[in-house]
Amino acid sequence: MSDRKLEVCLTPALLHLYNIRESIVVVIDIFRATSSICYGIENGVEAIIPVASVESCESYRHTDYLLAAERNGEVVDGFDFGNSPFAYASDKVQGKIVVLTTTNGTHAINESREARKVVIGSFLNLSALSHWLKSQPHDVLLVCAGWKNNFNLEDTLFAGAVVHQLKDECYKLDDSAIGAEDLYVAGKHDLNEYLKKTSHSERLKKLGIEEDIRFCLNVDLTTTIPVLDGDRLVRMEVTELIEK
Amino acid sequence: MSDRKLEVCLTPALLHLYNIRESIVVVIDIFRATSSICYGIENGVEAIIPVASVESCESYRHTDYLLAAERNGEVVDGFDFGNSPFAYASDKVQGKIVVLTTTNGTHAINESREARKVVIGSFLNLSALSHWLKSQPHDVLLVCAGWKNNFNLEDTLFAGAVVHQLKDECYKLDDSAIGAEDLYVAGKHDLNEYLKKTSHSERLKKLGIEEDIRFCLNVDLTTTIPVLDGDRLVRMEVTELIEK
Repeated sequence: MSDRKLEVCLTPALLHLYNIRESIVVVIDIFRATSSICYGIENGVEAIIPVASVESCESYRHTDYLLAAERNGEVVDGFDFGNSPFAYASDKVQGKIVVLTTTNGTHAINESREARKVVIGSFLNLSALSHWLKSQPHDVLLVCAGWKNNFNLEDTLFAGAVVHQLKDECYKLDDSAIGAEDLYVAGKHDLNEYLKKTSHSERLKKLGIEEDIRFCLNVDLTTTIPVLDGDRLVRMEVTELIEK
Repeated sequence: MSDRKLEVCLTPALLHLYNIRESIVVVIDIFRATSSICYGIENGVEAIIPVASVESCESYRHTDYLLAAERNGEVVDGFDFGNSPFAYASDKVQGKIVVLTTTNGTHAINESREARKVVIGSFLNLSALSHWLKSQPHDVLLVCAGWKNNFNLEDTLFAGAVVHQLKDECYKLDDSAIGAEDLYVAGKHDLNEYLKKTSHSERLKKLGIEEDIRFCLNVDLTTTIPVLDGDRLVRMEVTELIEK
Protein backbone atom coordinates (compact mmCIF):
# COMPACT_ATOMS: atom_id res chain seq x y z
CA MET A 1 0.00 0.00 0.00
CA SER A 2 1.98 2.98 -1.21
CA ASP A 3 1.06 6.47 -2.34
CA ARG A 4 -1.85 6.93 0.02
CA LYS A 5 -2.35 10.59 0.82
CA LEU A 6 -2.33 11.78 4.41
CA GLU A 7 -3.65 15.33 4.54
CA VAL A 8 -4.86 17.76 7.18
CA CYS A 9 -7.73 20.14 6.47
CA LEU A 10 -7.07 22.87 9.04
CA THR A 11 -10.66 24.17 9.12
CA PRO A 12 -13.98 23.11 7.54
CA ALA A 13 -13.76 26.31 5.44
CA LEU A 14 -11.00 24.62 3.41
CA LEU A 15 -12.83 21.32 2.79
CA HIS A 16 -13.65 22.28 -0.80
CA LEU A 17 -9.93 22.02 -1.63
CA TYR A 18 -9.88 18.28 -0.95
CA ASN A 19 -11.18 15.26 -2.78
CA ILE A 20 -13.14 13.90 0.15
CA ARG A 21 -15.11 11.30 -1.83
CA GLU A 22 -12.00 9.14 -2.12
CA SER A 23 -10.84 9.64 1.46
CA ILE A 24 -11.50 8.34 4.91
CA VAL A 25 -12.30 11.51 6.82
CA VAL A 26 -11.43 11.75 10.51
CA VAL A 27 -13.40 14.54 12.18
CA ILE A 28 -11.59 16.22 15.08
CA ASP A 29 -13.07 18.57 17.67
CA ILE A 30 -10.96 17.93 20.74
CA PHE A 31 -12.70 20.49 23.04
CA ARG A 32 -15.08 18.71 23.31
CA ALA A 33 -17.46 17.19 20.77
CA THR A 34 -15.37 14.38 19.30
CA SER A 35 -13.80 13.52 22.67
CA SER A 36 -17.30 13.15 24.11
CA ILE A 37 -18.49 11.12 21.13
CA CYS A 38 -15.55 8.71 21.55
CA TYR A 39 -16.24 8.42 25.27
CA GLY A 40 -19.98 7.91 24.76
CA ILE A 41 -19.56 5.22 22.11
CA GLU A 42 -16.99 3.47 24.32
CA ASN A 43 -19.50 3.56 27.17
CA GLY A 44 -22.24 1.84 25.25
CA VAL A 45 -24.26 4.62 23.64
CA GLU A 46 -26.28 2.84 20.96
CA ALA A 47 -25.97 5.75 18.52
CA ILE A 48 -25.29 9.47 18.38
CA ILE A 49 -27.21 11.47 15.78
CA PRO A 50 -25.29 14.63 14.88
CA VAL A 51 -27.60 17.43 13.74
CA ALA A 52 -26.80 20.89 12.43
CA SER A 53 -29.15 23.09 14.43
CA VAL A 54 -30.66 23.43 17.86
CA GLU A 55 -34.06 23.31 16.13
CA SER A 56 -33.25 19.92 14.58
CA CYS A 57 -32.21 18.68 17.98
CA GLU A 58 -35.44 20.05 19.50
CA SER A 59 -37.48 18.13 16.92
CA TYR A 60 -36.54 14.88 18.70
CA ARG A 61 -38.24 16.09 21.90
CA HIS A 62 -40.84 13.58 23.20
CA THR A 63 -38.84 10.58 22.03
CA ASP A 64 -36.69 8.26 24.14
CA TYR A 65 -33.60 10.00 22.86
CA LEU A 66 -31.31 12.10 25.02
CA LEU A 67 -30.98 15.62 23.64
CA ALA A 68 -27.58 17.32 23.75
CA ALA A 69 -27.11 20.89 22.51
CA GLU A 70 -24.09 23.15 22.93
CA ARG A 71 -23.49 26.63 21.58
CA ASN A 72 -20.45 28.75 22.36
CA GLY A 73 -19.27 26.29 24.98
CA GLU A 74 -22.47 26.18 27.03
CA VAL A 75 -25.44 23.83 27.30
CA VAL A 76 -28.40 25.37 25.50
CA ASP A 77 -31.28 26.13 27.88
CA GLY A 78 -33.84 23.36 28.10
CA PHE A 79 -31.54 20.53 26.96
CA ASP A 80 -30.43 17.46 28.88
CA PHE A 81 -26.76 18.17 28.34
CA GLY A 82 -24.15 19.65 25.99
CA ASN A 83 -20.79 18.24 25.05
CA SER A 84 -19.04 17.67 28.36
CA PRO A 85 -17.46 14.19 28.26
CA PHE A 86 -18.62 13.57 31.83
CA ALA A 87 -22.21 13.55 30.58
CA TYR A 88 -21.32 10.49 28.50
CA ALA A 89 -20.46 8.12 31.38
CA SER A 90 -21.86 4.57 31.21
CA ASP A 91 -24.56 5.05 33.81
CA LYS A 92 -25.99 7.99 31.90
CA VAL A 93 -25.86 6.81 28.31
CA GLN A 94 -25.57 3.03 28.01
CA GLY A 95 -28.06 1.71 25.47
CA LYS A 96 -29.37 5.19 24.70
CA ILE A 97 -29.55 7.19 21.51
CA VAL A 98 -28.22 10.74 21.79
CA VAL A 99 -29.12 13.61 19.43
CA LEU A 100 -26.25 16.08 19.42
CA THR A 101 -25.64 19.56 18.04
CA THR A 102 -22.48 21.55 18.79
CA THR A 103 -20.89 24.79 17.58
CA ASN A 104 -18.12 23.19 15.54
CA GLY A 105 -17.96 19.40 15.73
CA THR A 106 -21.33 18.50 14.25
CA HIS A 107 -20.80 21.16 11.56
CA ALA A 108 -17.57 19.46 10.51
CA ILE A 109 -19.29 16.05 10.47
CA ASN A 110 -22.10 17.38 8.28
CA GLU A 111 -19.65 18.97 5.86
CA SER A 112 -17.82 15.65 5.51
CA ARG A 113 -20.78 13.41 4.69
CA GLU A 114 -19.66 12.85 1.08
CA ALA A 115 -16.50 11.10 2.20
CA ARG A 116 -15.80 7.41 1.57
CA LYS A 117 -16.16 6.95 5.31
CA VAL A 118 -16.42 9.35 8.26
CA VAL A 119 -14.87 8.37 11.57
CA ILE A 120 -14.37 10.27 14.80
CA GLY A 121 -11.02 10.93 16.43
CA SER A 122 -9.76 12.33 19.71
CA PHE A 123 -6.80 11.78 22.00
CA LEU A 124 -9.01 9.24 23.82
CA ASN A 125 -8.88 6.79 20.88
CA LEU A 126 -5.63 7.92 19.20
CA SER A 127 -3.86 4.56 18.93
CA ALA A 128 -6.94 2.50 18.07
CA LEU A 129 -7.82 4.97 15.33
CA SER A 130 -4.28 5.16 13.95
CA HIS A 131 -3.95 1.38 13.95
CA TRP A 132 -7.16 1.05 11.94
CA LEU A 133 -6.25 3.82 9.48
CA LYS A 134 -2.96 2.08 8.71
CA SER A 135 -4.87 -1.08 7.75
CA GLN A 136 -7.01 0.75 5.19
CA PRO A 137 -5.86 1.09 1.55
CA HIS A 138 -7.32 4.60 1.27
CA ASP A 139 -6.31 8.23 1.45
CA VAL A 140 -6.80 9.83 4.85
CA LEU A 141 -8.04 13.36 5.44
CA LEU A 142 -7.91 14.67 9.01
CA VAL A 143 -10.54 17.42 9.32
CA CYS A 144 -10.05 19.89 12.15
CA ALA A 145 -13.38 21.36 13.26
CA GLY A 146 -11.64 24.51 14.49
CA TRP A 147 -13.61 27.35 16.07
CA LYS A 148 -16.27 28.83 13.79
CA ASN A 149 -14.16 27.98 10.76
CA ASN A 150 -11.00 29.45 12.30
CA PHE A 151 -7.84 27.41 12.78
CA ASN A 152 -7.29 26.16 16.32
CA LEU A 153 -4.30 24.58 17.96
CA GLU A 154 -5.84 21.67 19.86
CA ASP A 155 -7.46 20.08 16.81
CA THR A 156 -4.29 20.62 14.76
CA LEU A 157 -2.14 19.06 17.49
CA PHE A 158 -4.29 15.97 17.48
CA ALA A 159 -4.10 15.77 13.69
CA GLY A 160 -0.33 15.97 14.17
CA ALA A 161 -0.46 13.11 16.67
CA VAL A 162 -2.16 10.91 14.07
CA VAL A 163 0.40 11.92 11.43
CA HIS A 164 3.12 11.02 13.94
CA GLN A 165 1.70 7.51 14.31
CA LEU A 166 1.10 6.97 10.58
CA LYS A 167 3.93 8.65 8.76
CA ASP A 168 6.30 5.68 8.52
CA GLU A 169 3.67 3.79 6.53
CA CYS A 170 4.24 5.18 3.03
CA TYR A 171 1.86 8.11 3.10
CA LYS A 172 2.33 11.23 1.03
CA LEU A 173 1.96 14.18 3.40
CA ASP A 174 0.77 17.66 2.48
CA ASP A 175 2.27 20.75 4.11
CA SER A 176 -0.45 21.01 6.73
CA ALA A 177 0.21 17.40 7.79
CA ILE A 178 3.93 18.17 8.09
CA GLY A 179 3.25 21.34 10.06
CA ALA A 180 0.68 19.67 12.31
CA GLU A 181 3.13 16.94 13.21
CA ASP A 182 5.83 19.45 14.10
CA LEU A 183 3.38 21.31 16.35
CA TYR A 184 2.44 18.01 18.02
CA VAL A 185 6.11 17.20 18.59
CA ALA A 186 6.57 20.68 20.11
CA GLY A 187 3.64 20.20 22.49
CA LYS A 188 3.43 16.48 23.21
CA HIS A 189 5.53 16.41 26.37
CA ASP A 190 2.73 18.31 28.14
CA LEU A 191 -0.34 18.91 25.99
CA ASN A 192 -2.26 20.65 28.76
CA GLU A 193 0.56 23.09 29.44
CA TYR A 194 1.16 23.72 25.73
CA LEU A 195 -2.49 24.47 25.06
CA LYS A 196 -2.69 27.00 27.89
CA LYS A 197 -1.19 29.53 25.52
CA THR A 198 -4.00 29.19 22.97
CA SER A 199 -6.13 32.19 22.19
CA HIS A 200 -9.21 30.71 23.82
CA SER A 201 -7.76 29.16 26.99
CA GLU A 202 -9.07 32.14 28.94
CA ARG A 203 -12.50 31.65 27.44
CA LEU A 204 -12.48 27.97 28.40
CA LYS A 205 -11.40 28.89 31.93
CA LYS A 206 -14.33 31.28 32.23
CA LEU A 207 -16.68 28.49 31.20
CA GLY A 208 -15.41 26.45 34.16
CA ILE A 209 -14.61 23.44 32.02
CA GLU A 210 -10.98 22.92 32.99
CA GLU A 211 -11.79 19.41 34.22
CA ASP A 212 -13.28 18.65 30.80
CA ILE A 213 -10.15 19.97 29.08
CA ARG A 214 -7.85 17.78 31.15
CA PHE A 215 -10.07 14.77 30.49
CA CYS A 216 -10.08 15.37 26.73
CA LEU A 217 -6.27 15.24 26.71
CA ASN A 218 -6.12 11.68 28.08
CA VAL A 219 -4.40 9.54 25.49
CA ASP A 220 -5.73 6.06 24.67
CA LEU A 221 -8.40 5.87 27.33
CA THR A 222 -10.73 4.17 24.81
CA THR A 223 -10.38 1.58 22.06
CA THR A 224 -13.52 2.03 19.95
CA ILE A 225 -13.91 4.05 16.76
CA PRO A 226 -17.18 5.89 16.14
CA VAL A 227 -18.18 5.69 12.47
CA LEU A 228 -20.96 7.45 10.58
CA ASP A 229 -23.60 4.98 9.39
CA GLY A 230 -26.34 6.85 7.54
CA ASP A 231 -27.39 9.67 9.83
CA ARG A 232 -25.90 8.25 13.01
CA LEU A 233 -22.57 7.59 14.65
CA VAL A 234 -22.19 4.04 15.87
CA ARG A 235 -19.42 1.80 17.16
CA MET A 236 -17.31 0.36 14.36
CA GLU A 237 -17.88 -3.39 14.24
CA VAL A 238 -15.00 -5.81 14.74
CA THR A 239 -15.45 -7.18 11.22
CA GLU A 240 -14.90 -3.70 9.86
CA LEU A 241 -11.89 -3.24 12.09
CA ILE A 242 -10.09 -6.11 10.39
CA GLU A 243 -11.25 -5.26 6.84
CA LYS A 244 -8.30 -4.74 4.49
CA MET B 1 -0.34 50.69 22.46
CA SER B 2 -1.98 47.61 23.90
CA ASP B 3 -4.58 45.18 22.64
CA ARG B 4 -3.48 45.28 19.02
CA LYS B 5 -4.30 42.02 17.30
CA LEU B 6 -1.59 40.02 15.58
CA GLU B 7 -3.20 37.34 13.44
CA VAL B 8 -2.14 34.96 10.69
CA CYS B 9 -4.47 34.14 7.81
CA LEU B 10 -3.09 30.80 6.67
CA THR B 11 -4.50 31.00 3.13
CA PRO B 12 -6.43 33.61 1.11
CA ALA B 13 -9.43 31.26 1.28
CA LEU B 14 -9.80 32.22 4.96
CA LEU B 15 -9.61 36.00 4.46
CA HIS B 16 -13.37 36.41 4.90
CA LEU B 17 -12.96 35.44 8.56
CA TYR B 18 -10.91 38.56 9.33
CA ASN B 19 -11.72 42.22 9.71
CA ILE B 20 -9.18 43.40 7.18
CA ARG B 21 -10.48 46.99 6.91
CA GLU B 22 -9.04 47.78 10.34
CA SER B 23 -5.75 45.96 9.81
CA ILE B 24 -2.40 46.44 8.21
CA VAL B 25 -2.15 43.44 5.92
CA VAL B 26 1.25 41.92 5.17
CA VAL B 27 1.11 39.76 2.04
CA ILE B 28 3.52 36.82 2.06
CA ASP B 29 4.50 34.62 -0.88
CA ILE B 30 8.03 33.57 -0.07
CA PHE B 31 8.59 31.35 -3.16
CA ARG B 32 8.84 33.75 -4.93
CA ALA B 33 6.53 36.71 -5.60
CA THR B 34 6.90 38.78 -2.45
CA SER B 35 10.63 38.05 -2.17
CA SER B 36 11.06 39.33 -5.72
CA ILE B 37 8.88 42.38 -5.05
CA CYS B 38 10.99 43.28 -2.01
CA TYR B 39 14.17 42.81 -4.00
CA GLY B 40 12.89 44.83 -6.95
CA ILE B 41 11.70 47.75 -4.83
CA GLU B 42 15.03 47.75 -2.98
CA ASN B 43 16.80 47.84 -6.33
CA GLY B 44 15.01 50.94 -7.53
CA VAL B 45 11.96 49.67 -9.42
CA GLU B 46 9.71 52.72 -9.67
CA ALA B 47 6.54 50.68 -9.21
CA ILE B 48 5.19 47.15 -9.53
CA ILE B 49 1.60 46.81 -10.73
CA PRO B 50 0.13 43.51 -9.51
CA VAL B 51 -2.58 42.20 -11.83
CA ALA B 52 -4.84 39.18 -11.52
CA SER B 53 -4.59 37.61 -14.96
CA VAL B 54 -2.10 36.98 -17.75
CA GLU B 55 -4.52 38.86 -20.01
CA SER B 56 -4.37 41.97 -17.81
CA CYS B 57 -0.59 41.77 -17.90
CA GLU B 58 -0.68 41.40 -21.69
CA SER B 59 -2.80 44.55 -21.96
CA TYR B 60 0.28 46.58 -20.99
CA ARG B 61 2.16 45.32 -24.08
CA HIS B 62 3.54 48.18 -26.20
CA THR B 63 4.23 50.39 -23.20
CA ASP B 64 7.58 51.05 -21.51
CA TYR B 65 6.62 48.68 -18.77
CA LEU B 66 8.34 45.37 -18.14
CA LEU B 67 5.89 42.50 -18.24
CA ALA B 68 6.29 39.66 -15.75
CA ALA B 69 3.97 36.65 -15.78
CA GLU B 70 4.30 33.39 -13.89
CA ARG B 71 1.95 30.42 -13.74
CA ASN B 72 2.67 27.17 -11.92
CA GLY B 73 6.25 28.21 -11.28
CA GLU B 74 7.19 28.98 -14.88
CA VAL B 75 7.52 32.13 -16.96
CA VAL B 76 4.50 32.39 -19.27
CA ASP B 77 5.50 32.18 -22.95
CA GLY B 78 6.05 35.56 -24.54
CA PHE B 79 6.78 37.48 -21.33
CA ASP B 80 9.97 39.27 -20.30
CA PHE B 81 10.24 37.39 -17.04
CA GLY B 82 8.33 35.70 -14.22
CA ASN B 83 8.96 35.91 -10.52
CA SER B 84 12.59 34.88 -10.12
CA PRO B 85 14.27 37.37 -7.77
CA PHE B 86 17.34 37.43 -10.05
CA ALA B 87 15.24 39.15 -12.71
CA TYR B 88 14.83 42.07 -10.29
CA ALA B 89 18.50 43.07 -10.02
CA SER B 90 19.32 46.79 -10.27
CA ASP B 91 20.68 46.71 -13.81
CA LYS B 92 17.46 45.16 -15.08
CA VAL B 93 14.80 47.10 -13.23
CA GLN B 94 16.06 50.41 -11.87
CA GLY B 95 13.64 53.22 -12.71
CA LYS B 96 11.26 50.83 -14.48
CA ILE B 97 7.64 49.97 -13.92
CA VAL B 98 6.88 46.25 -13.80
CA VAL B 99 3.48 44.68 -14.40
CA LEU B 100 3.32 41.38 -12.53
CA THR B 101 0.94 38.45 -12.37
CA THR B 102 1.71 35.26 -10.42
CA THR B 103 -0.15 32.12 -9.37
CA ASN B 104 -0.56 33.02 -5.72
CA GLY B 105 1.10 36.25 -4.64
CA THR B 106 -0.80 38.73 -6.79
CA HIS B 107 -4.04 36.88 -5.98
CA ALA B 108 -3.41 37.43 -2.26
CA ILE B 109 -2.62 41.12 -2.87
CA ASN B 110 -5.85 41.59 -4.82
CA GLU B 111 -7.91 39.88 -2.15
CA SER B 112 -6.42 42.23 0.48
CA ARG B 113 -7.13 45.56 -1.21
CA GLU B 114 -9.78 46.57 1.33
CA ALA B 115 -7.24 46.64 4.15
CA ARG B 116 -6.18 49.80 5.99
CA LYS B 117 -2.82 49.36 4.30
CA VAL B 118 -1.21 46.54 2.29
CA VAL B 119 2.52 45.96 2.61
CA ILE B 120 4.78 43.22 1.27
CA GLY B 121 6.90 40.93 3.41
CA SER B 122 9.61 38.34 2.87
CA PHE B 123 12.66 37.09 4.70
CA LEU B 124 14.61 39.70 2.72
CA ASN B 125 12.99 42.60 4.64
CA LEU B 126 12.00 40.81 7.87
CA SER B 127 13.54 43.19 10.42
CA ALA B 128 12.72 46.41 8.58
CA LEU B 129 9.11 45.29 8.23
CA SER B 130 8.81 44.13 11.85
CA HIS B 131 10.34 47.34 13.14
CA TRP B 132 7.80 49.40 11.19
CA LEU B 133 4.83 47.25 12.23
CA LYS B 134 5.74 47.75 15.89
CA SER B 135 5.56 51.51 15.42
CA GLN B 136 2.00 51.40 14.06
CA PRO B 137 -1.01 51.58 16.42
CA HIS B 138 -3.00 49.11 14.31
CA ASP B 139 -3.95 45.46 14.18
CA VAL B 140 -1.71 43.34 11.97
CA LEU B 141 -2.89 40.53 9.73
CA LEU B 142 -0.21 38.39 8.10
CA VAL B 143 -1.70 36.87 4.94
CA CYS B 144 -0.03 33.75 3.60
CA ALA B 145 -0.55 33.42 -0.16
CA GLY B 146 -0.16 29.65 0.06
CA TRP B 147 -0.43 27.48 -3.05
CA LYS B 148 -3.75 27.77 -4.87
CA ASN B 149 -5.50 28.52 -1.59
CA ASN B 150 -3.82 25.62 0.18
CA PHE B 151 -1.72 26.09 3.33
CA ASN B 152 2.01 26.06 2.73
CA LEU B 153 4.91 25.87 5.13
CA GLU B 154 7.25 28.55 3.81
CA ASP B 155 4.73 31.39 4.00
CA THR B 156 3.61 30.22 7.45
CA LEU B 157 7.21 30.06 8.67
CA PHE B 158 7.79 33.63 7.59
CA ALA B 159 4.57 34.74 9.32
CA GLY B 160 5.97 32.98 12.40
CA ALA B 161 9.24 34.92 12.05
CA VAL B 162 7.30 38.21 12.15
CA VAL B 163 5.32 37.02 15.18
CA HIS B 164 8.63 36.10 16.82
CA GLN B 165 9.89 39.66 16.34
CA LEU B 166 6.65 41.35 17.44
CA LYS B 167 5.19 39.25 20.19
CA ASP B 168 6.76 41.02 23.16
CA GLU B 169 4.99 44.25 22.13
CA CYS B 170 1.54 43.72 23.66
CA TYR B 171 -0.17 42.02 20.75
CA LYS B 172 -3.05 39.61 21.16
CA LEU B 173 -2.18 36.52 19.12
CA ASP B 174 -4.66 34.14 17.51
CA ASP B 175 -3.99 30.39 17.39
CA SER B 176 -2.54 30.52 13.89
CA ALA B 177 -0.03 33.18 15.00
CA ILE B 178 0.98 31.00 17.96
CA GLY B 179 1.31 27.92 15.76
CA ALA B 180 3.21 29.81 13.03
CA GLU B 181 5.74 31.05 15.56
CA ASP B 182 6.30 27.55 16.93
CA LEU B 183 6.89 26.26 13.40
CA TYR B 184 9.37 29.09 12.78
CA VAL B 185 11.20 28.26 15.99
CA ALA B 186 11.34 24.60 14.87
CA GLY B 187 12.81 25.54 11.49
CA LYS B 188 14.81 28.72 11.98
CA HIS B 189 18.20 27.12 12.62
CA ASP B 190 18.24 26.05 8.96
CA LEU B 191 15.26 27.24 6.95
CA ASN B 192 16.50 25.72 3.71
CA GLU B 193 16.94 22.29 5.28
CA TYR B 194 13.60 22.50 7.10
CA LEU B 195 11.71 23.41 3.96
CA LYS B 196 13.18 20.49 2.01
CA LYS B 197 10.53 18.31 3.60
CA THR B 198 7.65 20.33 2.21
CA SER B 199 5.20 18.69 -0.13
CA HIS B 200 6.35 20.75 -3.12
CA SER B 201 10.13 20.74 -2.69
CA GLU B 202 10.33 18.07 -5.39
CA ARG B 203 8.23 20.22 -7.69
CA LEU B 204 10.51 23.20 -7.09
CA LYS B 205 13.55 21.05 -7.78
CA LYS B 206 12.07 19.99 -11.10
CA LEU B 207 11.59 23.63 -12.01
CA GLY B 208 15.32 24.17 -11.52
CA ILE B 209 14.83 27.09 -9.18
CA GLU B 210 16.90 25.90 -6.24
CA GLU B 211 19.10 29.01 -6.50
CA ASP B 212 15.97 31.16 -6.27
CA ILE B 213 14.82 29.25 -3.19
CA ARG B 214 18.12 29.75 -1.40
CA PHE B 215 18.08 33.43 -2.30
CA CYS B 216 14.54 33.92 -0.98
CA LEU B 217 15.63 32.58 2.42
CA ASN B 218 18.24 35.31 2.95
CA VAL B 219 17.27 37.25 6.05
CA ASP B 220 17.50 41.06 6.11
CA LEU B 221 19.17 41.54 2.77
CA THR B 222 16.95 44.59 2.15
CA THR B 223 15.60 47.48 4.23
CA THR B 224 12.70 48.83 2.17
CA ILE B 225 9.01 48.05 2.57
CA PRO B 226 6.86 47.82 -0.57
CA VAL B 227 3.43 49.35 0.05
CA LEU B 228 0.31 49.34 -2.11
CA ASP B 229 -0.54 52.85 -3.32
CA GLY B 230 -3.64 52.75 -5.51
CA ASP B 231 -3.00 50.03 -8.06
CA ARG B 232 0.76 49.90 -7.64
CA LEU B 233 3.38 48.78 -5.18
CA VAL B 234 5.94 51.45 -4.38
CA ARG B 235 8.69 52.02 -1.87
CA MET B 236 7.36 53.25 1.48
CA GLU B 237 8.55 56.82 2.02
CA VAL B 238 10.72 57.70 4.99
CA THR B 239 8.02 60.03 6.33
CA GLU B 240 5.65 57.10 6.44
CA LEU B 241 8.27 54.95 8.08
CA ILE B 242 8.35 57.23 11.11
CA GLU B 243 4.59 57.88 11.23
CA LYS B 244 3.14 56.98 14.61
